[in-house]
Amino acid sequence: MKPPPNGTPSSSPGLRIVVVNTLPPQQDEHDVGVQEQLARSRTLRIGLLEAGYNIVASIPGDIYLIDRIAQLQPDMIIIDAESDARDVLEHMVVITSEAPRPIVLFTEDGNPSQLAAAMRVGVSAYVVAGLQSERIKPVLDVAIARFEAEQKLRNELSDTKARLAERKTIERAKGYLMERHQLSENEAYQRLRKQAMEKNLKLIQVAERILDIADLLG
Amino acid sequence: MKPPPNGTPSSSPGLRIVVVNTLPPQQDEHDVGVQEQLARSRTLRIGLLEAGYNIVASIPGDIYLIDRIAQLQPDMIIIDAESDARDVLEHMVVITSEAPRPIVLFTEDGNPSQLAAAMRVGVSAYVVAGLQSERIKPVLDVAIARFEAEQKLRNELSDTKARLAERKTIERAKGYLMERHQLSENEAYQRLRKQAMEKNLKLIQVAERILDIADLLG
Repeated sequence: MKPPPNGTPSSSPGLRIVVVNTLPPQQDEHDVGVQEQLARSRTLRIGLLEAGYNIVASIPGDIYLIDRIAQLQPDMIIIDAESDARDVLEHMVVITSEAPRPIVLFTEDGNPSQLAAAMRVGVSAYVVAGLQSERIKPVLDVAIARFEAEQKLRNELSDTKARLAERKTIERAKGYLMERHQLSENEAYQRLRKQAMEKNLKLIQVAERILDIADLLG
Repeated sequence: MKPPPNGTPSSSPGLRIVVVNTLPPQQDEHDVGVQEQLARSRTLRIGLLEAGYNIVASIPGDIYLIDRIAQLQPDMIIIDAESDARDVLEHMVVITSEAPRPIVLFTEDGNPSQLAAAMRVGVSAYVVAGLQSERIKPVLDVAIARFEAEQKLRNELSDTKARLAERKTIERAKGYLMERHQLSENEAYQRLRKQAMEKNLKLIQVAERILDIADLLG
């Protein structure tokens, strides 16, 4: 494979890409609109190949999409949204919840409800009327950088939520010990820590076990 | 003012925009490069005006930038990054921490370290080599939608962090009451709630007052 002409650290050549097109399958090939769509779709794929990306598949956005993406495990998904892409975006919700990855959507249509749907899914780049083969690589580089920045934010959010949930559990367990054994807060905390160290468990695991037993004892 | 040709709900006509340019002030106007830069800068401003945006100022990215943005309070900032925009991006960190708003950066240069700096600042759109006046409105629409989606995520993160911090304070106050007055966890919680209702305060405020007094009592 040819390396990309302007290789940067953020877009490794050979990034495995799946192109999803929203073109309805049964169409008259002699129709001018359909021919334009096919030409656009070719431009996109040529631009990707010229920039050194590895197109592992080019597939329709149908009901098999979720399974196919799960099999192919691409590094990035590109949606070539000729027609309304809202169904494809709905599939992306499932795909992204299983494995987040950068998604770039190219469209000719600045339709606000499709844009809103794309934002809900977390599309990394939404490019309206900007499909020129020489612009594809910078768009993808920005999309990857944006995806990484957003993942960092999402990870921080899920870590903070997990800490909040753990805190609630640990505090409940501590409260139970304080009440049952007439301990001070610090004594209850020390008892939790001692258990965790002795059994080689995390504090949260000890707290969960205590609360399970507290439920049993009523 | 002329309304935008394709007005969508997400881009109200008359959105107040400040254009920041990174063009160094002292340059030879007869230089071909400088003339190209001036032409590009005009294309950008014409595109914005044609799409119905309200350019309230077009200013250099110098040391006065932070104060000027604070005075102008635009709805959106556009950076016309002819030369290296990293200094301007550093100013944006301060500007954004005071009042987050969508930022769009147009550049000719796909320089990875500038892109990384832009992502840290939270630039809503980073457009490389894509300045055509008819594409400006879709780019800005997407940038606004992306900004709103990201703000939602950031707000959720700061709410969750605040809840975690409040939880810690409330639990500490509850622990103090349990220990001092030999209360069960539930009794301590009920006492906090009763105080909050009687004094018309939030639970967190009562907890903070209790801990202040606990500090005084030692």
